[in-house]
Amino acid sequence: MNPEALYRISYGLYIVSSHKNGVPNGQIANTVFQVTSEPVMVAVCLNNRNLTNEYVRESGVFSVSVLDRNTPLKFIGKFGFNTGRNSNKFEDIDFFWGKTGAPIVRDHSIAYIEAEVRDMMEVKTHTLFFGEVVEAEILKEGEPLTYAEYHYKMKGKTPETATVYLERLKM
Amino acid sequence: MNPEALYRISYGLYIVSSHKNGVPNGQIANTVFQVTSEPVMVAVCLNNRNLTNEYVRESGVFSVSVLDRNTPLKFIGKFGFNTGRNSNKFEDIDFFWGKTGAPIVRDHSIAYIEAEVRDMMEVKTHTLFFGEVVEAEILKEGEPLTYAEYHYKMKGKTPETATVYLERLKM
Repeated sequence: MNPEALYRISYGLYIVSSHKNGVPNGQIANTVFQVTSEPVMVAVCLNNRNLTNEYVRESGVFSVSVLDRNTPLKFIGKFGFNTGRNSNKFEDIDFFWGKTGAPIVRDHSIAYIEAEVRDMMEVKTHTLFFGEVVEAEILKEGEPLTYAEYHYKMKGKTPETATVYLERLKM
Repeated sequence: MNPEALYRISYGLYIVSSHKNGVPNGQIANTVFQVTSEPVMVAVCLNNRNLTNEYVRESGVFSVSVLDRNTPLKFIGKFGFNTGRNSNKFEDIDFFWGKTGAPIVRDHSIAYIEAEVRDMMEVKTHTLFFGEVVEAEILKEGEPLTYAEYHYKMKGKTPETATVYLERLKM
């Protein structure tokens, strides 16, 4: 098996956010996709070790901010390589509370989606949350950042909690 | 809700193939993604009305061919806007049989993945098939075709059986 072949699958890069009793948290995710069009449902895949997984599970809501192509690596690192267990990632960024009660990151985001969890599925190390979309809006003009661009052009790293972490196979 | 926001989610474009008693069939899909890295599992989302859905269900195997950025619209149309119920889509194309027994499209493909179905989930109009990856290889150099490129630059159409079909919302 050549892991490079798996990197030919295309993804975007997003911040998936949720809350617990009004405390916001969010994380970088690449596995966000629409599963049905009637009703409009999206799914997100979050590692069970991540705090956002716990928050989505408890609140039953999540938001997805679609990151702009020009998002700085440092901003991605803040949400992708830190845990909300030690600090509040939302402290010094631009965000707002959506109609579901989920926090929505506006910084470096071109669009957002809000969803209410209708179903979930455990897949080994991760959980797939299926949400019915209740709001979706464009925030500004711009192109979405793709995972390929992050990985190959920006030389961004992948945490081992990601769905696409394949370092083991490269050994 | 602004459906344009949902089109900011990034996808690739793939041919997902399977077979029934050795008869091959395949279809265009955009919802293909890795869900876990240990074991390496991918999921594909196929409409229940599509013949490939039936074949994957019966054979328990599927392949994913990652389409090249330069794939002609006509080739995509052959797999995306036709049904294998009336004709054999594999009759005049270059393909081979994988180790799982699934057919693998080589024409216009830069990489492929083969998987054995381990789980499935019904999501309204579609089924999500979760497969453990048993083979993955690069077929040739090239960049993967993205759904955004197909939709915006090539002006490709979206059948109403697609996960991302949102014409209803545009009315």
